Amino acid sequence: MQVDRMPQPMQPRAARTREVLLRAAAEVFAEVGYTRASLVKIIERAGLTTGAVYFHFKSKEGLARAVIHEQAADVEFPQGEPGLQHLIDITTHLAVELQQNTLLRAGVRLAVEQNEVDLQEYEIYRWWAERFKEELAAARLKGQLLPSVDETAFASLLVAAYTGTQIMSQLATQRADLPGRILSLWQCLLPALAPANAIAQLTIPVPGSAGQGGA
Amino acid sequence: MQVDRMPQPMQPRAARTREVLLRAAAEVFAEVGYTRASLVKIIERAGLTTGAVYFHFKSKEGLARAVIHEQAADVEFPQGEPGLQHLIDITTHLAVELQQNTLLRAGVRLAVEQNEVDLQEYEIYRWWAERFKEELAAARLKGQLLPSVDETAFASLLVAAYTGTQIMSQLATQRADLPGRILSLWQCLLPALAPANAIAQLTIPVPGSAGQGGA
Repeated sequence: MQVDRMPQPMQPRAARTREVLLRAAAEVFAEVGYTRASLVKIIERAGLTTGAVYFHFKSKEGLARAVIHEQAADVEFPQGEPGLQHLIDITTHLAVELQQNTLLRAGVRLAVEQNEVDLQEYEIYRWWAERFKEELAAARLKGQLLPSVDETAFASLLVAAYTGTQIMSQLATQRADLPGRILSLWQCLLPALAPANAIAQLTIPVPGSAGQGGA
Repeated sequence: MQVDRMPQPMQPRAARTREVLLRAAAEVFAEVGYTRASLVKIIERAGLTTGAVYFHFKSKEGLARAVIHEQAADVEFPQGEPGLQHLIDITTHLAVELQQNTLLRAGVRLAVEQNEVDLQEYEIYRWWAERFKEELAAARLKGQLLPSVDETAFASLLVAAYTGTQIMSQLATQRADLPGRILSLWQCLLPALAPANAIAQLTIPVPGSAGQGGA
């Protein structure tokens, strides 16, 4: 996904250079954060010339914004029909991805710590809320939601709760307990979202069991 | 509150110096964040000598940790009997405080962005969860909770959701819409927490109305 900021089509070689650069930047940002990352270090990591880099990005800030916007580009979202089960599967999958997917880890880290460097990038939070809302809208059509549920408000709450949960998990255990915390999040939230008979038909994957995406 | 790290009793004058210093640090951290804050700037702001400062704190990091731990020291928590209404009142009050209470703003900012500077302070998140859990335990005794609710898990979710909500509100509107977002959070969460007859007896303050603490 590219959050409405997909660059114009480019030549395959230029596109490949950009990919390499974006991932080198993600590695460095994920390791040391924004302040301690330097453009020189990123260029070195990418094994590119300075000229090739400046064709795509003018600054560390530009690279950071691209990493934030394209944080989910390497996530292979779980297959499945949209609805509550799919929403649970996506959030469970993301908990594992946040332990190992460098672009996602870097993008989430920058999105959380961006205030420190005044990036003011709210769009990515809106993007996730929109994505979750689509699943809730599908759940509504399937009769999986309680009549009282406001899909827009709930999607926004879910993004907020997920954001805070991963911050706490990062501090407490370097995200080792994140899948368990997401399980607990759903156990708390589901009674506000769905009637008991719909909940009974859902599978909330228990961390460490089969189907956890090989984590 | 001091999160289990209350310093030993000190002479009144030394204690006053520490207070002045902590609030000067909070001002600077709230304005520019950790990286761009300097010990020199904080000492200047406090109008103290370097010696007076080093008696209390050896480094910017030490000051930042104190601001994180003591973030709620200037919050006048709403009166009231513990329980669901009190919990709602506390979170609503905090939304207004986060717009104007410098020590709280700085402490929350540092707690969120601390990964950028490796402070690894999880304790403050645990402290808030403990505080919310006490209210939920009181709510349980009053018969305000659904039997299914796990107070520990829900308190932790509430801290996570609050943390994420204030980050999003900060990015979207510099926290101008935070009281509205907290109202929305409760509208989403309450059906998972309390039976309908208990919800019917609660007052969720609407932002901008009377009783909003003068915000």
